[in-house]
Amino acid sequence: MIGINPYFERLRGGYLFAEIAKRTEEYRRNNPEKDLIRLGIGDVTQPLAPEVIRAMHGAVDEMSREETFRGYGPYFGYDFLIRAIIENDYGKRGVVIREDEVFVNDGCKSDSSGILDLFSEETSIAVCDPVYPVYIDAAVMSGRGGVFDEKAGTYSHIDALRCDASTGFLPSVPDATAPGSFRGVIFLCFPNNPTGAAIGREALTEWVEYANQTDSVILYDSAYEAFISEDLPHSIFEIEGARTCAIELRSFSKTAGFTGVRCGYTVIPTDLVRDGVRLRDLWARRQATRFNGVSYITQRAAEAVYSQVGRRQTEGAIRYYLENARVLRQGLIECGFGVSGGVNAPYLWVETPEKKTSWEFFDELLEKFAIVVTPGSGFGAAGEGYFRITAFGNWENASKAISRLKDGGYAGTGYAGRGYEAAGRRGKE
Amino acid sequence: MIGINPYFERLRGGYLFAEIAKRTEEYRRNNPEKDLIRLGIGDVTQPLAPEVIRAMHGAVDEMSREETFRGYGPYFGYDFLIRAIIENDYGKRGVVIREDEVFVNDGCKSDSSGILDLFSEETSIAVCDPVYPVYIDAAVMSGRGGVFDEKAGTYSHIDALRCDASTGFLPSVPDATAPGSFRGVIFLCFPNNPTGAAIGREALTEWVEYANQTDSVILYDSAYEAFISEDLPHSIFEIEGARTCAIELRSFSKTAGFTGVRCGYTVIPTDLVRDGVRLRDLWARRQATRFNGVSYITQRAAEAVYSQVGRRQTEGAIRYYLENARVLRQGLIECGFGVSGGVNAPYLWVETPEKKTSWEFFDELLEKFAIVVTPGSGFGAAGEGYFRITAFGNWENASKAISRLKDGGYAGTGYAGRGYEAAGRRGKE
Repeated sequence: MIGINPYFERLRGGYLFAEIAKRTEEYRRNNPEKDLIRLGIGDVTQPLAPEVIRAMHGAVDEMSREETFRGYGPYFGYDFLIRAIIENDYGKRGVVIREDEVFVNDGCKSDSSGILDLFSEETSIAVCDPVYPVYIDAAVMSGRGGVFDEKAGTYSHIDALRCDASTGFLPSVPDATAPGSFRGVIFLCFPNNPTGAAIGREALTEWVEYANQTDSVILYDSAYEAFISEDLPHSIFEIEGARTCAIELRSFSKTAGFTGVRCGYTVIPTDLVRDGVRLRDLWARRQATRFNGVSYITQRAAEAVYSQVGRRQTEGAIRYYLENARVLRQGLIECGFGVSGGVNAPYLWVETPEKKTSWEFFDELLEKFAIVVTPGSGFGAAGEGYFRITAFGNWENASKAISRLKDGGYAGTGYAGRGYEAAGRRGKE
Repeated sequence: MIGINPYFERLRGGYLFAEIAKRTEEYRRNNPEKDLIRLGIGDVTQPLAPEVIRAMHGAVDEMSREETFRGYGPYFGYDFLIRAIIENDYGKRGVVIREDEVFVNDGCKSDSSGILDLFSEETSIAVCDPVYPVYIDAAVMSGRGGVFDEKAGTYSHIDALRCDASTGFLPSVPDATAPGSFRGVIFLCFPNNPTGAAIGREALTEWVEYANQTDSVILYDSAYEAFISEDLPHSIFEIEGARTCAIELRSFSKTAGFTGVRCGYTVIPTDLVRDGVRLRDLWARRQATRFNGVSYITQRAAEAVYSQVGRRQTEGAIRYYLENARVLRQGLIECGFGVSGGVNAPYLWVETPEKKTSWEFFDELLEKFAIVVTPGSGFGAAGEGYFRITAFGNWENASKAISRLKDGGYAGTGYAGRGYEAAGRRGKE
């Protein structure tokens, strides 16, 4: 017999960015003279570091000569890159990772969906709300989401961990001893897209303990760790006990401007075992079958990010984006907005004024100020009443956007402007 | 709850290349003075074409400046590459393909497994035997293989289409009107890996008609089409009716030496509809969720393959490999072997002498001649009694290997040397 994958039909939404593009285009058509500022964009704009460029030219030249030409690379990445990753991203933070625990990939997105291949279809999934929609969509289309409840707006196999101002936009750790407490795969992303919240050691330790107590597995997406400016964990493996319950997803996309180059990696400790099976070994089998490695030139580019010069240069770009974030955060607070994020992340999560819905305020910002943002409701039910701004644009536009808002009456209009704790800290941290 | 994907346990084999590596390494250790010739390698050895190198340097430079920097590309590929593909690979052969029907990927392997995401788990699958093992392994690990029957050596949801000398190593088309005839997804790969057989228009037309009659879908892997030297179809879309029943997988890996660069593409016609669903639209949704596009630099490299200069240069490498294939084929026939392939493909499929098993003869070639080949039984039950040789090495080694065999007594020893019809033709073709 032949049949279509029935799970695609269960997908909801997914038209967030298409809808933004549609409304923006309509505005442009009606207002061709207006200078549009795009603060919704989640893509980097700074060029690659000179050292990365140098490395790529060198690798391209190697491909031009028979003696140095490289064909198929190792499925899981070249040793030179894996060693650089281990030494710089882990060793320097006192974390020991083995070479066979690192899997180089073509960016975090592929593995953040592919990793679900390791688990049975009955496995429960927990995601934060608001959330990067790929986690949910990938789960649903592979049959791991369960049935969609129209009224509740939820999937039967997917738990939403509500993240709002009351917890500094961190998910609350459930009680592991309570009957029927969650047991499954938990997606955590810190620093967070979209809220910009970062997590402290104490809160992350609670999650690791919970996962170990319940046999859950944490999929820790730390694609934005390079933006951490305070004393916070960059990797979940800085937390004791994480080797038996966590998988980490990393990317060069935002760290080094690789969104158009495509490189990231996944770390699965050999100590991570469920149902008597070492997940690292399953993943190795999966990748060897479904993936054929990353471009040699790209891997040389990624290696160069870790050189002394490369690191200094890429850190320059990060500082540039963080300065944009600072300008936006400061300006929005002065305008009276409730703002989270933007200190350890390139994202700012901003309350709409006067309890307007995300889309209502999206339209207002577009029509009155020619500013494009991302409506928070596109990231989940808990995102309603918020909008996301990114710091990936240029500094001039960030400043100009703030000026427009202030000129338009958003300074001292009575909104209770406040900045949340940047790191979403809890307890003594 | 949490559980491990139960389907990984159903995987069989997959240790073919590991076993070859093990035996080869052992031989090397015991015979360090011997000059080993590797004819098993399925990877290209010729460097990238100068025009491709030039394009990559140019693209790298673009990434170094803010004005020309590229971040995230389109999920499905840049227009410049899609247009070059359509014009050169299809338009010049009189085939009309729309821009929204082409999906650029990081190589054929990813999509040849990912494409099964489009179908339900109950969908039946047919593969040739012998076969590129990825089709089966990807199906099995995603739950689409059914149960493995130890005695028969088969999976309950996977039909094996036997390809042997009696049909010129082409699968026989079943009778569409017979009760219980196969209906599902049919993997066809021509020119074939591992047999090197190519398919003619008439035989391919029969498959297209069968698929349309039974609502089956053909996944046509034409990664080796650049090696076709006779008058044979390069694309399944040259066959009338294919737009309603076929998906085509293409790759730059062997066409232009991109095994270390990673680029390919998949074509899904908008006319391909099953269960009322347009497969092209499902795939677009799938790719947008699970994939983030191919490196800009890589796409510029692929575009350069289609330029006048680039084409001439890459065709030079193809001719080089085909000349290796000719030398190997001719030499093996003179040695008394039964040989198929090597005329429209970089692969030769060779009978073991005296009905030896594939592994027996593997060991003999290694021990007596220091030649490494790939045992045919690693590609399926019908591969027993054969071995695969590739033409991707260099010309000197190809000649040397033949000389060794001849010097070792393989000339005129009484084996019935013969060359099968290169193109696996049937009927009047």
